[in-house]
Amino acid sequence: MAAITWASLHLKTPTPSLHFPNLPKPHSILTRPAPRPRIRASLIEPDGGTLVELMVKESEKLSKVKAAEQLPKIRLSAVDLQWVHVLSEGWASPLRGFMRESEFLQTLHFSSLRLHDGSRVNMSVPIVLALDDLQKSRVGSSTAVALVDDGGDLVAILSDIEIYKHNKEERIARTWGTTAGGLPYAEKAISGAGNWLIGGDLEVVKPIKYNDGLDRFRLSPSQLRHEFERRDADAVFAFQLRNPVHNGHALLMTDTRRRLLDMGYKNPVLLLHPLGGYTKEDDVPLTWRMKQHEKVLEDGVLDPETTVVSIFPSPMHYAGPTEVQWHAKARINAGANFYIVGRDPAGMAHPIEKRDLYDADHGKKVLSMAPGLERLNILPFKVAAYDKTQSKMAFFDPSRAQDFVFISGTKMRSLAKNRESPPDGFMCPGGWKVLVEYYESLAPASNGRVPQPLAA
Amino acid sequence: MAAITWASLHLKTPTPSLHFPNLPKPHSILTRPAPRPRIRASLIEPDGGTLVELMVKESEKLSKVKAAEQLPKIRLSAVDLQWVHVLSEGWASPLRGFMRESEFLQTLHFSSLRLHDGSRVNMSVPIVLALDDLQKSRVGSSTAVALVDDGGDLVAILSDIEIYKHNKEERIARTWGTTAGGLPYAEKAISGAGNWLIGGDLEVVKPIKYNDGLDRFRLSPSQLRHEFERRDADAVFAFQLRNPVHNGHALLMTDTRRRLLDMGYKNPVLLLHPLGGYTKEDDVPLTWRMKQHEKVLEDGVLDPETTVVSIFPSPMHYAGPTEVQWHAKARINAGANFYIVGRDPAGMAHPIEKRDLYDADHGKKVLSMAPGLERLNILPFKVAAYDKTQSKMAFFDPSRAQDFVFISGTKMRSLAKNRESPPDGFMCPGGWKVLVEYYESLAPASNGRVPQPLAA
Repeated sequence: MAAITWASLHLKTPTPSLHFPNLPKPHSILTRPAPRPRIRASLIEPDGGTLVELMVKESEKLSKVKAAEQLPKIRLSAVDLQWVHVLSEGWASPLRGFMRESEFLQTLHFSSLRLHDGSRVNMSVPIVLALDDLQKSRVGSSTAVALVDDGGDLVAILSDIEIYKHNKEERIARTWGTTAGGLPYAEKAISGAGNWLIGGDLEVVKPIKYNDGLDRFRLSPSQLRHEFERRDADAVFAFQLRNPVHNGHALLMTDTRRRLLDMGYKNPVLLLHPLGGYTKEDDVPLTWRMKQHEKVLEDGVLDPETTVVSIFPSPMHYAGPTEVQWHAKARINAGANFYIVGRDPAGMAHPIEKRDLYDADHGKKVLSMAPGLERLNILPFKVAAYDKTQSKMAFFDPSRAQDFVFISGTKMRSLAKNRESPPDGFMCPGGWKVLVEYYESLAPASNGRVPQPLAA
Repeated sequence: MAAITWASLHLKTPTPSLHFPNLPKPHSILTRPAPRPRIRASLIEPDGGTLVELMVKESEKLSKVKAAEQLPKIRLSAVDLQWVHVLSEGWASPLRGFMRESEFLQTLHFSSLRLHDGSRVNMSVPIVLALDDLQKSRVGSSTAVALVDDGGDLVAILSDIEIYKHNKEERIARTWGTTAGGLPYAEKAISGAGNWLIGGDLEVVKPIKYNDGLDRFRLSPSQLRHEFERRDADAVFAFQLRNPVHNGHALLMTDTRRRLLDMGYKNPVLLLHPLGGYTKEDDVPLTWRMKQHEKVLEDGVLDPETTVVSIFPSPMHYAGPTEVQWHAKARINAGANFYIVGRDPAGMAHPIEKRDLYDADHGKKVLSMAPGLERLNILPFKVAAYDKTQSKMAFFDPSRAQDFVFISGTKMRSLAKNRESPPDGFMCPGGWKVLVEYYESLAPASNGRVPQPLAA
């Protein structure tokens, strides 16, 4: 399929410019007025109308901690904690805690939740907490449980709980469209998990911190909204990534801003939003990616004035068209009204067959039709590749395909690992150096294991 | 879980009675006015507003047949023909033919289709036509194809076609929530089918007839609507079945009518609607089921005055919560505004594990939350069982559970097969005799194979 051009975007995107006088102004029809005066009317409204924040008030903390002492305790895994983080800050608004069965079933069957007023919000990946038989029997007839971290410290209280069956096979089949062994998230967080799920209302008493030097980048949706307001953004375009930024990405982001300016927006702001939760073993770890992103901004490839770099705390599912909806929906809650979607978003190789797990075009197609995402402007990714005639990354031109080289994430990782250089102009030198350093750091890894890039 | 009582129904169902003065009258809010004057305003509107019928007009038939001679031909399987039947009469309204990719993806991901006005209709099972590589190359660049039956006769034209990949694994995983081998429909119609799907607009030149003596029972949605009008029905409640009717079913249907009368409806009519398309080998075949249903009406177990018996032409998927939505949605198109849902609708045993494939309560839960079915009143099945103290089928009373015997479909088939009698009052004697005859007829079956009931 040919690269999607901006022509198709113009038909779908409301614009304030006079070039398209019959189209509504941004948000005039698509969104309702913002619920709180401190949020600018021009920022997209959170799903469900109000951003859900589940932190216990300081004044109530002591009594909550006291009450929690009497409750059955459930120890959270690292991935569970990431979901508590996600829920507590309202990325999954209007969800108020781990899913109960009705939410779980709607997620699996409809990728969306029906609200009381009959409207639907998108919700495509289950946000659930598993229990094994022993834990379930410990909960007994209690109506609430205390969620504790690895050290036994109280993190949150889950109340008005509902325990229901965890049909792992069905969950995996309906989320990934396959049950093949070797799905990274399924192996990490589902296959070995308990046979029950526990849902309820979450109240978080201890903010989730990682103490990895990156917590200052972990802005909540509310903090991001304030930042966009402070910068007087009249459009926010989000770019989800879990890979190092190369000049093709940069070209796309710069080009997107230019197009939004052409459409009449005065100050479009980029949310460069690397995913910070669980990723598979051969992905570049967050700390190294953040170093690399920093270099890219330092080297002037992206303009810091119009770019907000922040970390999205969600774990990664690698569930393609299902997961890309979650990635987009969460960014609505952070104030983004434009979402850039690439080829094969959240995709990976089929775990056992020699093919990609998802059709590369399904992600953007599903996203454009998804219930609850009607308000979001989907910006299909124009494919960038290395243009040998210009020695730089450029939008792929099928009429002179022979001039272009595609450098996949796998290829990029393999070059850096072997200390080879990519073609000039593929990535800024400072950024590339970080990548090479990362792979060098693996060689003497204390556990003796060097993650191998997967075969393409 | 305890049997759902009518109390919960009352909260969800609009009613004309004065007992619930704050609730809207039937359809006054939930449905728009009927589009055609010949349809009574009191019948529920078809999905999309207009019942789609895809038969070519008599006056155009000759030219269509002529034009089709030049088109590439695709031979339809028996199951494909059943879907042509389904589509041609508008059971899947507003679908106008086999699904194109956007409809296929929405079905798999959202169990619903977005219409141009932004509203959603339910659509939970893919209605698709598969092609293999050879057929695809034969279609070449043609924009239309001729669909022919086993004898090579033209059945329909599919135009403005789109050919796209048939990812069978993903289709099966997202439809059934498992990819385990042994799913009857998947084995019958998917696993061996081609790797491409072809969608397009369908025009049927030859009505689908089965010449099995039962075509007179195959009323189209339009014919059913006329029949309900003729009977002056002010509520239509549909009962989907693929098994012989026993007195527990009859009790439920009679009780439903009584309750609807109590709610203020003057003339609720039952649509007793056995599924007539593909069923798995150990189900009782349609001809025998129809004989059995006839006896049940003759024996006065159900009142012919307020019952319409007709055949639903769809093939069976055995896809539980996903499929029950299709069963319900199709009945809206036939004019039913009440749908009776039982335990584990469209369920079966897991093909390889020793458990039911679906949670018995998920069907009715998913149905009650499904996009596009908001207009339909869901009537949860009250569980009936054989009450030993009364020697008849009665609604199960958990406070005296020991008085009841549950006779499953498997148990029933096993009794009939062994010429044993069920307890008095389980089924009318005429109906039971038909079942016994069916199993007797199998013994000298010409192919030497006697289908075995599956283990429970």
